[in-house]
Amino acid sequence: MLIIGERLNGMFKRVKSAIEQKNKKEIQAVAEEEIKAGAGMIDINVGTAAADQEGTMKWLVETVQEKFPKIPLAIDSSKPEVVLAGLKVCRNPVLINSTTAEDAKLEKLLGFAVEYKADILGLTLDENGIPSQKDERVALAAKILMTAMEMGLSPSQVYIDPVVLPVKFGQDQCLTMISAIRDIKTALNDPPPKTAIGLSNISNGAPKEMRPLINRTYLVMCLAAGLDGAIVDPYDTDLVDAMITSELLLNKQIYSDSFLKAYRTSH
Amino acid sequence: MLIIGERLNGMFKRVKSAIEQKNKKEIQAVAEEEIKAGAGMIDINVGTAAADQEGTMKWLVETVQEKFPKIPLAIDSSKPEVVLAGLKVCRNPVLINSTTAEDAKLEKLLGFAVEYKADILGLTLDENGIPSQKDERVALAAKILMTAMEMGLSPSQVYIDPVVLPVKFGQDQCLTMISAIRDIKTALNDPPPKTAIGLSNISNGAPKEMRPLINRTYLVMCLAAGLDGAIVDPYDTDLVDAMITSELLLNKQIYSDSFLKAYRTSH
Repeated sequence: MLIIGERLNGMFKRVKSAIEQKNKKEIQAVAEEEIKAGAGMIDINVGTAAADQEGTMKWLVETVQEKFPKIPLAIDSSKPEVVLAGLKVCRNPVLINSTTAEDAKLEKLLGFAVEYKADILGLTLDENGIPSQKDERVALAAKILMTAMEMGLSPSQVYIDPVVLPVKFGQDQCLTMISAIRDIKTALNDPPPKTAIGLSNISNGAPKEMRPLINRTYLVMCLAAGLDGAIVDPYDTDLVDAMITSELLLNKQIYSDSFLKAYRTSH
Repeated sequence: MLIIGERLNGMFKRVKSAIEQKNKKEIQAVAEEEIKAGAGMIDINVGTAAADQEGTMKWLVETVQEKFPKIPLAIDSSKPEVVLAGLKVCRNPVLINSTTAEDAKLEKLLGFAVEYKADILGLTLDENGIPSQKDERVALAAKILMTAMEMGLSPSQVYIDPVVLPVKFGQDQCLTMISAIRDIKTALNDPPPKTAIGLSNISNGAPKEMRPLINRTYLVMCLAAGLDGAIVDPYDTDLVDAMITSELLLNKQIYSDSFLKAYRTSH
């Protein structure tokens, strides 16, 4: 599974403060920690750290790729102009995070993906919000994928995110999302698109000490349904262990008695 | 999920020694610990603890139900005469553990189930061993279920065990078994039979310190596929926590901020 590290986000105090002080070393230290913990891609999100979101995104991208010229980056913003500011300076492989299935937004961000040879993550929501039914989410996934392919992207460049909702506020939605992943991976197209989720939302609102248990349990279920990637906290060792063990059981990593260590050495 | 406690087994030193000394209190203490840890059924297995397996099974059943007259018991032996010795003295609800799909054995043990109003667990293996393909295991499950129904049992009395094999010795078998569970729960009969597995075999041969992680990760995957019960070590708190959290995410337990405690209080 592709681990997309979620810690380089202006909503974290450490990152916010580094942005305010233009402290490159601290930003690079966060990226380095994430990579060492297993992240194969670094999500970059300005958050609410700065008034100048475009300038901040540009600075963050440049700062990370100055130290890590090969690590793929996810340019994370709901604002197209902030995404564009990141794309313009990005020399590393890049994932646009994210578009939705809303016509205007989808067309604009797919245009960016084509222009900048970027992968793109599409959330299964549109003008009407997030559908509560599985089939409707799969239909939005199909819309995103088909539009991307019409514009010249390959299915392997498209990540679909069927939107994780908190178990606390809608328990039936947990299984709906998992079924959506399975359908997207098996029934949508051959080859299918990739799937990725923002995992931590599953435990939103739950007591802090329960969140890691909920997160890793849900991740195991999603992986068994075919999930390809997730935006997660790579500092959560138990979570990464559960992910590695899932890959072992799903026959995606060859068994060895020291399979945790073997995975970490090779990633 | 029905937790079937696996600790009352003559292969464990503590139980073996209690059998040799006819120490009722110690046997009852093991049962009590399992129940407190969340077991809804106690598996009783003589193991290799005694030459007189039939007499030992009888004594164990009587000893447990003397203290716990309502807890369901699983009479666990591959020898029909040992199962029969347990059934004859059992007043508690009871699960025969286990038959296979071999004609003679299946007929004999289903006969016991009918006579003693017992539930029965059927392993998907026959004269040719354990099929490596999912469809063949499902076919054996169908054979067990249909034969049971012809003899007058209801589907809810039948547990199918699609046989967990060690990840160390056949990684592709992990997913095969999970697919078998899903098919048995969705495509075999309406209503479907129950499913149960002997979980610990998944980590057989793996280093001792890695076994709990492998066990609980696999259990979460099996639960997401529809598993109803498992023979497990209820002393493994992390395993039981993963099981409870899975039930939460599968919408089988109502969310509360203290869902682990809520589950344990109500079971």
